[in-house]
Amino acid sequence: MCAPAVAAGSRRHHADDGIHSLSRRAFLKTGITLTAGAALAATSPALPAAAFTKKARRTVDLTHRLVKAFPSFFGPQGVFDEVITDFDPDGFFSKRWTLVEHIGTHVDTPGHFDQGNRLVDDLTLSDLLAPIVVIDIKAKAVEDPNAMVEPADLVAFERRHGRIPERALVCMNSGWADKVGDGDTFRGGAGFPDLNFPGFSIDATDWLVARRDPVGIGVDTISLDPGNSATFDVHFGFLATGRYGVESLANLDQIPPRGALGFVGPVPWEDGSGAPCRAIAAW
Amino acid sequence: MCAPAVAAGSRRHHADDGIHSLSRRAFLKTGITLTAGAALAATSPALPAAAFTKKARRTVDLTHRLVKAFPSFFGPQGVFDEVITDFDPDGFFSKRWTLVEHIGTHVDTPGHFDQGNRLVDDLTLSDLLAPIVVIDIKAKAVEDPNAMVEPADLVAFERRHGRIPERALVCMNSGWADKVGDGDTFRGGAGFPDLNFPGFSIDATDWLVARRDPVGIGVDTISLDPGNSATFDVHFGFLATGRYGVESLANLDQIPPRGALGFVGPVPWEDGSGAPCRAIAAW
Repeated sequence: MCAPAVAAGSRRHHADDGIHSLSRRAFLKTGITLTAGAALAATSPALPAAAFTKKARRTVDLTHRLVKAFPSFFGPQGVFDEVITDFDPDGFFSKRWTLVEHIGTHVDTPGHFDQGNRLVDDLTLSDLLAPIVVIDIKAKAVEDPNAMVEPADLVAFERRHGRIPERALVCMNSGWADKVGDGDTFRGGAGFPDLNFPGFSIDATDWLVARRDPVGIGVDTISLDPGNSATFDVHFGFLATGRYGVESLANLDQIPPRGALGFVGPVPWEDGSGAPCRAIAAW
Repeated sequence: MCAPAVAAGSRRHHADDGIHSLSRRAFLKTGITLTAGAALAATSPALPAAAFTKKARRTVDLTHRLVKAFPSFFGPQGVFDEVITDFDPDGFFSKRWTLVEHIGTHVDTPGHFDQGNRLVDDLTLSDLLAPIVVIDIKAKAVEDPNAMVEPADLVAFERRHGRIPERALVCMNSGWADKVGDGDTFRGGAGFPDLNFPGFSIDATDWLVARRDPVGIGVDTISLDPGNSATFDVHFGFLATGRYGVESLANLDQIPPRGALGFVGPVPWEDGSGAPCRAIAAW
């Protein structure tokens, strides 16, 4: 399903290449060991020019509040808190949290579905700072809750708004963010496999990877693939290219289709397959 | 310790004002209920002008990798993971985390030490996007591990680098970030009350609040107050002004003393006293 040239490069860590996979992961581990507890690499890429050629005047938070009732993919509650100190008797308030990695507005890493590929503490600002484009499929998502971003939507976007920049975060706006307050509505069901919501098609992500080299894709739903997917084509096919996904984005209606700079800031916890993030846009 | 005018405004939620405190918190709760699970307010403040008057060319990640061994204030391990799905047999990899709110590079909210004040899901981009200034006290921190940023350091900074902008994030660079790989070294001891590291003095934060209206302060150590503090003056006095702190920042050596725009992106979990964040600088 991937363009062959992409697949050849991206699948190098699959099970049929276990030695290379282990070696690469071992190398990463070595790097982590050498810098254990140390700062993430301080990268200084040139920022995407478009968003900074003029003074940025507007910013939007693309992050949902991470309420304890935040809808989880499988259905059961995914995030829990416990007060561990409080004003009486401790003099200050703090909590402990237990949460799955894939809850709230969060990142899916390449290694979430591709063994040996990059994990959340391998993503750097070169990945996480990127121009954002927003593909609006709200009209067809009203007709079909499992509607997908297809290559035709990308072509139509470019006809109207201009070429999708290289190294962009390409986001789907399906109108789903407004449903997040109710789990069954947001999921379109009780939880996997009872799910119905829009997502990307693998044809669309293959198109992007082959032609526009995105840093990642984002969705305003709970999964990169549509809810009725049984094969998770995008999770397997797109993440394996070394690119990341962002799920449950908010406020995509409030940013321009093209021209904003995005920042996706996941918690860089050790060897995480994903993590909650703070995502913003500025333009 | 606070300038009186500040204290009068900031202490309105203290125990001696319980009704107002509860009312305000109840109001916040109402807001949260009405928008339960909904997006954080999409704010669009004008960005601080200084950082965007020219094209930003450099970015630095100010975040430490959140390793499981990350030093905790009290000593014991503060962050734990558990693999909940793996490639064999599940076909994909994911984990569950249990962690205290105050671990890794993270935010301290006003409500952490001031009952009824703002919590992590109350902070908006108006707070979190700000010019960063870096006060370098490395020389005196070599002499005294409990050295403090004092008003004289702020005055000296302004003489050399110009006025600290309004609504800035004012950070201490004590040279401590390099020690983060070893808990006892980073803490200067085994854990509270055996701690020795630099921090802000309350006189310095009072000076800032009265004269420069910062959005918050940041430190490259594990606490806003110095390690040998028994009274947590800055935690009580500064946070109560409605401003936040960022602890265990990384890479402050790699950004200019003045002129960068900072973004501090905590996970906006429900009613958190703090949260791990991704913090970056661009200029």
